[in-house]
Amino acid sequence: MDCVVLLSGGIDSTTAFYLIQKEHRVFLALSFDYGSKHNAQELRFARYHAEKCGVRHEIIDLDFIRRSFKSDLLQSGGAIPQGSYDDDNMKSTVVPFRNGIMLAIAAGYAESIGAKRIVIAAHSGDHAIYPDCRPGFIRSMGEAISAGTYEDIQILCPFLNQNKGDIVRIGAELGVDYSQTWSCYCGGDLHCGKCGTCVERREAFAQAGIPDPTRYQN
Amino acid sequence: MDCVVLLSGGIDSTTAFYLIQKEHRVFLALSFDYGSKHNAQELRFARYHAEKCGVRHEIIDLDFIRRSFKSDLLQSGGAIPQGSYDDDNMKSTVVPFRNGIMLAIAAGYAESIGAKRIVIAAHSGDHAIYPDCRPGFIRSMGEAISAGTYEDIQILCPFLNQNKGDIVRIGAELGVDYSQTWSCYCGGDLHCGKCGTCVERREAFAQAGIPDPTRYQN
Repeated sequence: MDCVVLLSGGIDSTTAFYLIQKEHRVFLALSFDYGSKHNAQELRFARYHAEKCGVRHEIIDLDFIRRSFKSDLLQSGGAIPQGSYDDDNMKSTVVPFRNGIMLAIAAGYAESIGAKRIVIAAHSGDHAIYPDCRPGFIRSMGEAISAGTYEDIQILCPFLNQNKGDIVRIGAELGVDYSQTWSCYCGGDLHCGKCGTCVERREAFAQAGIPDPTRYQN
Repeated sequence: MDCVVLLSGGIDSTTAFYLIQKEHRVFLALSFDYGSKHNAQELRFARYHAEKCGVRHEIIDLDFIRRSFKSDLLQSGGAIPQGSYDDDNMKSTVVPFRNGIMLAIAAGYAESIGAKRIVIAAHSGDHAIYPDCRPGFIRSMGEAISAGTYEDIQILCPFLNQNKGDIVRIGAELGVDYSQTWSCYCGGDLHCGKCGTCVERREAFAQAGIPDPTRYQN
């Protein structure tokens, strides 16, 4: 099947990008510039992997999120919470309906270029905090995209019931170079090592039993 | 309930904008600039009605549609088909998953500003041609938005089972000034009177038994 992949440049979507190429053709990798603190770092790695695989890559500017949405993930928001990823305070980093917006745009692209599947790397570790990563959302959004397009375009969500440790294990088998991915929500030159998403990143490599190639500041 | 209304400046969304204010508060009217041939004309009227009602109005630039999507509705596309609106050739004016994209963006806005409902003016006359106007799409998209937001945001679709004649009748009772709305897909100074959407506009006034205030070129 011909696919559009949502590729942020983080661990999850980068792994999905390589995994899906084992069985499908990726027509287009889509990334989004929406004013997050770590957008520049993420996009650099998204571009790296798309170019490495010879896949067309588009970066969509979502200026309205930058200007108008409320989230501590954004440059306009407050400080990124430190500590465990599942702490309730990570809720402040939710960008409202971000996955819904990205999937809808990907659906429009897919129908425009003749792709039949959209790939998103939502996983079970996101379910507690992010409503637009949960199975119920993915299922309904998939039905909406199927109903709202001529070509019955569908969502593939390969990690929906796996956690980030599983993803790193799968990626290591595929030879994904995780030194060329970005997680840290703070967006400095190095991963801070202390924010919720850095803590989650460290834990994923530990769970997978894979050496963590990341250079952390702390 | 506090609402976000999708307001294009056409007959349907303008009528929905006034109708919904009878029972709800409109926090925000959202319009989209995506490179259609008639965007400038539509947006002028959307702004007019938002200002008249003292409602915050935002115009979202969807540059990626302008650059990358295929549709004869776009400035980059072919000629607008003439004749009856339900002719199969109107299919060439579909912008892939446009309503899905607009609703998803509206859901993000709604959650950011504390609105609980999103209003879209899809109606039964659109069902045949536009998959993202059909009841199945609206229902699934509503479920996705409800599942993907914290605040159980829902879609209101007041005209889902009514036709454009019904809408004009409702709007006339509300005192909507239809001379301040735009339909023509060709985007000239006056409504062309011959394209599918002009034909549909004429028929709606005739069906409603309301004088048509539109100045047509033909």
